[in-house]
Amino acid sequence: MRYCRTDDGFGLVEDDVIRLLDRSPIEGGRPDGRIIPATAARWRPPIVPPVFYAVGLNYRGHIEHARARGYAAAELPGRPEVGYRAGNALTGHLSPIVRPAGVAGRFEAEPEVVAVVGRTLKKASRPEAQESIFGWTIGNDVSAREWQNSDRTFWRSKNSDTFKPMGPWIETDVDPLAQTTICRVDGEVRARFATGAMIFDPFDYIVETTKYITMHPGDVLWMGADATVQLEPGNVVDIEISGIGVLSNPVQEES
Amino acid sequence: MRYCRTDDGFGLVEDDVIRLLDRSPIEGGRPDGRIIPATAARWRPPIVPPVFYAVGLNYRGHIEHARARGYAAAELPGRPEVGYRAGNALTGHLSPIVRPAGVAGRFEAEPEVVAVVGRTLKKASRPEAQESIFGWTIGNDVSAREWQNSDRTFWRSKNSDTFKPMGPWIETDVDPLAQTTICRVDGEVRARFATGAMIFDPFDYIVETTKYITMHPGDVLWMGADATVQLEPGNVVDIEISGIGVLSNPVQEES
Repeated sequence: MRYCRTDDGFGLVEDDVIRLLDRSPIEGGRPDGRIIPATAARWRPPIVPPVFYAVGLNYRGHIEHARARGYAAAELPGRPEVGYRAGNALTGHLSPIVRPAGVAGRFEAEPEVVAVVGRTLKKASRPEAQESIFGWTIGNDVSAREWQNSDRTFWRSKNSDTFKPMGPWIETDVDPLAQTTICRVDGEVRARFATGAMIFDPFDYIVETTKYITMHPGDVLWMGADATVQLEPGNVVDIEISGIGVLSNPVQEES
Repeated sequence: MRYCRTDDGFGLVEDDVIRLLDRSPIEGGRPDGRIIPATAARWRPPIVPPVFYAVGLNYRGHIEHARARGYAAAELPGRPEVGYRAGNALTGHLSPIVRPAGVAGRFEAEPEVVAVVGRTLKKASRPEAQESIFGWTIGNDVSAREWQNSDRTFWRSKNSDTFKPMGPWIETDVDPLAQTTICRVDGEVRARFATGAMIFDPFDYIVETTKYITMHPGDVLWMGADATVQLEPGNVVDIEISGIGVLSNPVQEES
């Protein structure tokens, strides 16, 4: 099943149409009889997470890339220690990524698979973590690297408005660790990696996080990227994860 | 006006009673006729923030304290750069702060004044930032220092369940910068400082943050502390900010 959210509400995506739901699919939403063509959808992030978890360095390629750029902190993580992003930055499929006026230099996409939690979890076992997943979606962890270097926190480098496209929908029937992630800019493949080649997988993160932290239905966990791709205003960036779909966003300059 | 949230819903606190509201006060909630005695309230955090902003080092005393403890990163901030906490950690007035089984050493309260945003804001001027505030409450930024030192992020050191008591209510009619913050443990004063002796005030943070980030109604901004106070299981920690109220929480060991 593919669950989305549009300006018209939550929906179930079936071929060319979206069957709108009476409420969030995580709350058990059912089709209410309204149907819109998928081409008419104005896509929103498929969920508004209570807590927006994100993994930083979780693929060897990305860590080596960061080290080569002189990021001293880019060591191989020894434990699955989660970080955070902020909900204001979320935007939907086909909505613009806006590069703020002050951004110069490296302005990069990070293609990531995203776990959507479906249950309340504390001190979860690995099987419980696996059973807790509602589904999987795609995230683009857009990052302004000069700000990431200069600032004390990731506040504007990773959380400026529109820096977190997520979607187009949540796929409930896929093994994300057996897929391929591809990032295209203006149709040209710029990165390709095995989605599952993670240092710690989503269930490792959930087991470790819930030792101390209750995770709730709708929480999202972005799993990191094995590659970064430069973006310029005028580009269209597509992130495809096999078995899930394609998240596509144009890049604009702040007006 | 003092607005709270309890197990029975949002409320308006008047002397000994709480007049329950038909919805959140930030959404214009009005008394719906239900009244409960304040002594019967089971207090929740007065708001569930869409984004939970928090300022790290924002008072000279706290920075000097951190430096003395060997925190190399504890430099005077040159700009108002915000950070984040996670909503799972919020708990209400009188609810226990639970010290996780693995925590040893310094386990500390940080008494903070909290701004509650009442409007949607982007690229706010200072007057707009001032007018955007719905009210003020009290936060206790409980921190497990060994984890804060050992971990890559603040995930469990500052975001474990129950580590973010907030309340007891939102006070709409107070100048927070003219108040005094007092922290008591088991009735004994352990810290006292001028609430307004900040390096950057809440409006500085809102002006800078909203250059890049849209703030939304219900977002909270925790303003940092000028002192930290050790907590042990069995203690009761009270944070009083004049003109707002007293946030009181017992400390328990994880069972």
